[in-house]
Amino acid sequence: MSDFAQIPMQFIGPLKVSGLVIEGDYEVPLATYETPLWPSVNRGARVSMNCAGGIQCTVVDERMTRSILLEAPDATAAVLALEKIKSNFPALQKTVESTSRFAKLINLNSQIAGNLLFLRFEFTTGDAAGHNMCTQAAEALIEQLLEQNPHLEYGSISGNYCSDKKATAVNGILGRGKYVVAELTIPGKICRRYLKTTPEKIVQLNIRKNLIGTMLAGGLRSANAHFANMLLGFYLATGQDAANIVEGSQGLTMAEERDGNLYFSVTLPNLIVGTVGNGKGLDFVLENMQRMGLDVAREPGENSRRLACLCAATVLCGELSLLAAQTNPGELMKAHRKLERKPA
Amino acid sequence: MSDFAQIPMQFIGPLKVSGLVIEGDYEVPLATYETPLWPSVNRGARVSMNCAGGIQCTVVDERMTRSILLEAPDATAAVLALEKIKSNFPALQKTVESTSRFAKLINLNSQIAGNLLFLRFEFTTGDAAGHNMCTQAAEALIEQLLEQNPHLEYGSISGNYCSDKKATAVNGILGRGKYVVAELTIPGKICRRYLKTTPEKIVQLNIRKNLIGTMLAGGLRSANAHFANMLLGFYLATGQDAANIVEGSQGLTMAEERDGNLYFSVTLPNLIVGTVGNGKGLDFVLENMQRMGLDVAREPGENSRRLACLCAATVLCGELSLLAAQTNPGELMKAHRKLERKPA
Amino acid sequence: MSDFAQIPMQFIGPLKVSGLVIEGDYEVPLATYETPLWPSVNRGARVSMNCAGGIQCTVVDERMTRSILLEAPDATAAVLALEKIKSNFPALQKTVESTSRFAKLINLNSQIAGNLLFLRFEFTTGDAAGHNMCTQAAEALIEQLLEQNPHLEYGSISGNYCSDKKATAVNGILGRGKYVVAELTIPGKICRRYLKTTPEKIVQLNIRKNLIGTMLAGGLRSANAHFANMLLGFYLATGQDAANIVEGSQGLTMAEERDGNLYFSVTLPNLIVGTVGNGKGLDFVLENMQRMGLDVAREPGENSRRLACLCAATVLCGELSLLAAQTNPGELMKAHRKLERKPA
Amino acid sequence: MSDFAQIPMQFIGPLKVSGLVIEGDYEVPLATYETPLWPSVNRGARVSMNCAGGIQCTVVDERMTRSILLEAPDATAAVLALEKIKSNFPALQKTVESTSRFAKLINLNSQIAGNLLFLRFEFTTGDAAGHNMCTQAAEALIEQLLEQNPHLEYGSISGNYCSDKKATAVNGILGRGKYVVAELTIPGKICRRYLKTTPEKIVQLNIRKNLIGTMLAGGLRSANAHFANMLLGFYLATGQDAANIVEGSQGLTMAEERDGNLYFSVTLPNLIVGTVGNGKGLDFVLENMQRMGLDVAREPGENSRRLACLCAATVLCGELSLLAAQTNPGELMKAHRKLERKPA
Repeated sequence: MSDFAQIPMQFIGPLKVSGLVIEGDYEVPLATYETPLWPSVNRGARVSMNCAGGIQCTVVDERMTRSILLEAPDATAAVLALEKIKSNFPALQKTVESTSRFAKLINLNSQIAGNLLFLRFEFTTGDAAGHNMCTQAAEALIEQLLEQNPHLEYGSISGNYCSDKKATAVNGILGRGKYVVAELTIPGKICRRYLKTTPEKIVQLNIRKNLIGTMLAGGLRSANAHFANMLLGFYLATGQDAANIVEGSQGLTMAEERDGNLYFSVTLPNLIVGTVGNGKGLDFVLENMQRMGLDVAREPGENSRRLACLCAATVLCGELSLLAAQTNPGELMKAHRKLERKPA
Repeated sequence: MSDFAQIPMQFIGPLKVSGLVIEGDYEVPLATYETPLWPSVNRGARVSMNCAGGIQCTVVDERMTRSILLEAPDATAAVLALEKIKSNFPALQKTVESTSRFAKLINLNSQIAGNLLFLRFEFTTGDAAGHNMCTQAAEALIEQLLEQNPHLEYGSISGNYCSDKKATAVNGILGRGKYVVAELTIPGKICRRYLKTTPEKIVQLNIRKNLIGTMLAGGLRSANAHFANMLLGFYLATGQDAANIVEGSQGLTMAEERDGNLYFSVTLPNLIVGTVGNGKGLDFVLENMQRMGLDVAREPGENSRRLACLCAATVLCGELSLLAAQTNPGELMKAHRKLERKPA
Repeated sequence: MSDFAQIPMQFIGPLKVSGLVIEGDYEVPLATYETPLWPSVNRGARVSMNCAGGIQCTVVDERMTRSILLEAPDATAAVLALEKIKSNFPALQKTVESTSRFAKLINLNSQIAGNLLFLRFEFTTGDAAGHNMCTQAAEALIEQLLEQNPHLEYGSISGNYCSDKKATAVNGILGRGKYVVAELTIPGKICRRYLKTTPEKIVQLNIRKNLIGTMLAGGLRSANAHFANMLLGFYLATGQDAANIVEGSQGLTMAEERDGNLYFSVTLPNLIVGTVGNGKGLDFVLENMQRMGLDVAREPGENSRRLACLCAATVLCGELSLLAAQTNPGELMKAHRKLERKPA
Repeated sequence: MSDFAQIPMQFIGPLKVSGLVIEGDYEVPLATYETPLWPSVNRGARVSMNCAGGIQCTVVDERMTRSILLEAPDATAAVLALEKIKSNFPALQKTVESTSRFAKLINLNSQIAGNLLFLRFEFTTGDAAGHNMCTQAAEALIEQLLEQNPHLEYGSISGNYCSDKKATAVNGILGRGKYVVAELTIPGKICRRYLKTTPEKIVQLNIRKNLIGTMLAGGLRSANAHFANMLLGFYLATGQDAANIVEGSQGLTMAEERDGNLYFSVTLPNLIVGTVGNGKGLDFVLENMQRMGLDVAREPGENSRRLACLCAATVLCGELSLLAAQTNPGELMKAHRKLERKPA
């Protein structure tokens, strides 16, 4: 990854992942041309190391999706076909299992628009992000559905109700990728010492900037300062399809003052990451996975959930650090000037 | 850039850029872990070479933005301050000019929410994408504004009304980055020969998938199939801050049947790219810029406009190719299986 | 309803409602201060009378929703509580049944943001629109949940994830109200004779205006010209809570040229209407219901589904008429001038 | 207005309108089938009467819009046409003045999508909401533009970039209707006595419900609890085109604890109201206008600005009251049960 100059090893302090029971310290790589990101994320990590309990991550949900588009003679026929397809769900599940060892069909959503029928299939995909697994499964499903419903016609193998790499609401509402929450409780003293600010100031900035400011901008499920920056660096360093930062960026930062402490959390409903698949065999990716302890055989899906938690914790560190900086006039530019004007 | 395995040199056939008067053939690099993207974009490029006139690009607009957040005693005070600030615009322009040789303040937008005043500054930034130039300018502006309006208080150097790397509507409506349209008219015969489909099929798919499907998904200014894929590859290969594909992905694909031909265009209102700045000094980036003829001194801004046009043309090629594939059941997976199962 | 001057009796030509098997002609009332709406909708109705099969309506789905907000100690506790609540679903259903003869709990959606737990309950509510029934049920549910999960705290009886009378994506994606599609196939000849336009012109206008234009405007699931106008008139004339036109307006107009005919449909996923409840006992409402044949006792829910179909058919007539007018320069204003300048 | 049972005269306590200098007490009518709205809004009004300074309203902006759609040969031609049209702005202004005594063209926005040119005209319209005035002006403009630009073709008199009665972002960002902020500072004691709650509780609920909850719902510029309810009642009682509550509902509630007091404000960027035009000649409307002191001749526009302020203040009262109720488990339903079960 030398093209990105160097990979900083972020020390994401004590990390707990509920359910997964991974505790301990981790080194997290970030590949980026925007080098001020490194010290910024590192500052957040240092804070987390000084907070009892560290960053706690929770995997709320996981699934990967693909929508297909079929055409019915009219809306009534579309409704009847949908009912028939739903009642036949176990057969669809079998079809999916025949396409892959890991893909499992777990749910089916739909939309009917005029005489068009959009079906959105939800899968679990083991440790893979699952794009190709889902497309392959969808292809088998579409063949089966067209055979069993001769009055339906092929519309598209992807009907954009999935929705892949586009700014939409459906992914957050119905689920796509790992849904992870990372939380940290920061004593006021730590806040002042490491972040040069107070819980109150961060709380107020988060409300006015991330919630109100984004809302005024016509934002869609995007109440944060810069999730996309950390996601890009993390995705590139771990061999992910980084175009998925589009939906990944749609998440929420929460900050509340609680008994003099700062409760700070990031909610990332659409982390599309995996530990196997395209890009994962590259040397630097293998090395990075190893450093994060993800080169160990575990139950299918567990490594990718751990990866998603490390990603969410990294996002938390970067988000916390930038918000803290923006509570203080002038600090942001000072940091930029200092870091970028140096010879690379 | 060896980490992305190899850089394919895409042959983006005859390209015209209105106003800029660049015509000719270009080699365009795409850095990606998703290697099927290369032959797919190349197919679109081959089509464009066989169409009279080739791909025509138009730069509709360009500007870079940063919003600041100020607090007034109440809404009335916010309105009065806004009026005063607007009437003082030339002085603000001077302030900006003192921070950089290239940054020019060209416009000012605002929102008032309760007693909060969001100011969104619009700049031209020469050949740079302009993130840092704008932050530096905004810092100077905020200092000036706080001095001249003692009843206003600092809120944030960035109020998220900018809006950077988040899924919002403001960038498309008010402008952020290069606003580029790339157009191609494809004879029906070429459509059938190279794309194995018809103008009618592409038109219908574009309406049902990109327009209706995305709309049903709760999409925000995002009527396309996969702009983000081409943008990521192009941004990484040319040293851009690739996290800006978040807003870059918010664009429109148009397809209309006109006299038996296919009119096909992509509209990209938020291409945030530059030929100077962070990431542009890396060896492979310099080499890529050279291949695209962008290492030549030109009037400030012209190289980055040319770059934006090459980017838009690349997006067109990839979008056209995927849509064509999706009109034919089974073709997509065939392509994936063939390309990815090969040893890397 | 004399304050709205007069109620025009629209003749919505042959109407078929799939499943419900209501066929025949209906008189539909529209209460409005904007009197040009009447002849406009009437023109659409006249067209439908001249099309074989008339307007066909399909009820795709129906449900009413209320979301509550609970606070958990942290995200992990929220996930565990959610799992417990889901596994206890039948007990929740019983609780709901105890609050009303008609309310039935049919589904449960959720969102976790930091340590907050949003639960969105979905109900069927017989022939009522169901606002109060759902609030009452939600109140019983929240009491039960707080009792059974002592570590959860009350957040709000409504958490805005419902979502009531606000422009959101959740209602269209998860469902709220009656989801109705109304379809009409218009021979080219009828199109020219009654609408003074061609199928091709309407198709093109619908794509460019309703799909592309609204998309550029940063529209959210709103690809139509003026659903809100017909909805307001229909809701007021039938005693509905007309503030629900906010989500009602979020729907899709489709127009396709098929074998020289115009396929024209409106998809309305969020019609929140009922035949019983607040406003339904007013004299003019009773009279209007009677004219539409909805004063007859039927299986619970059937009258309100019929009402929703009549509403959707009315929307189709008004939408068709306006789009036709806008294909012809000058026609719109001519109509306005002629109608409004007359003494009231 | 007897169909809505009765019009309650809300006492919106001391009201100040900055700039307009209207101070004093006002009676505000609300027409609704949902009668619990009356005591709820009245409670908010009572609170405002007990706060020093009362409700302060600020008119931030006002304009009415209409967008047209033109077709150019290609995107370059669209850009050139746009430049020519902009440089010809004074002539367009003259054309508009010839269509009406009151309409003035004040600004022009645009979007280019492929070869399509959307022009969004912004007007002031005196005391009228201005729908018809704008359509008439747009018709004259489109004729002029087609004459002067023979290579442009007519697309539509309305291109949905206006945007009228649809859930979009453009109206809030570029402006449409009166943009009004209403603010109130409530001592903690008053909060507890009249609203049975504390500033802290309202602040927290507003963040979690109106900001976070709506964001999760995929909301678009809609951070409030129920603006639509008050808007509908006010619009119907004052003869407005109530379908405009669709964009009217897109606004923001802010609540902050300041020195033990509650700062509470509503920001309504899209109030489309007037004191002349359709619906304003009805007897009950004339009477309602008179009670609000709006039957007096004033400078053009001033009466409609006063009306907008009264509307915003009413929204504030209703919003405050509902939020206060929702901080207390059970209160909401108690109120509903008590009020609606009474014989009407």
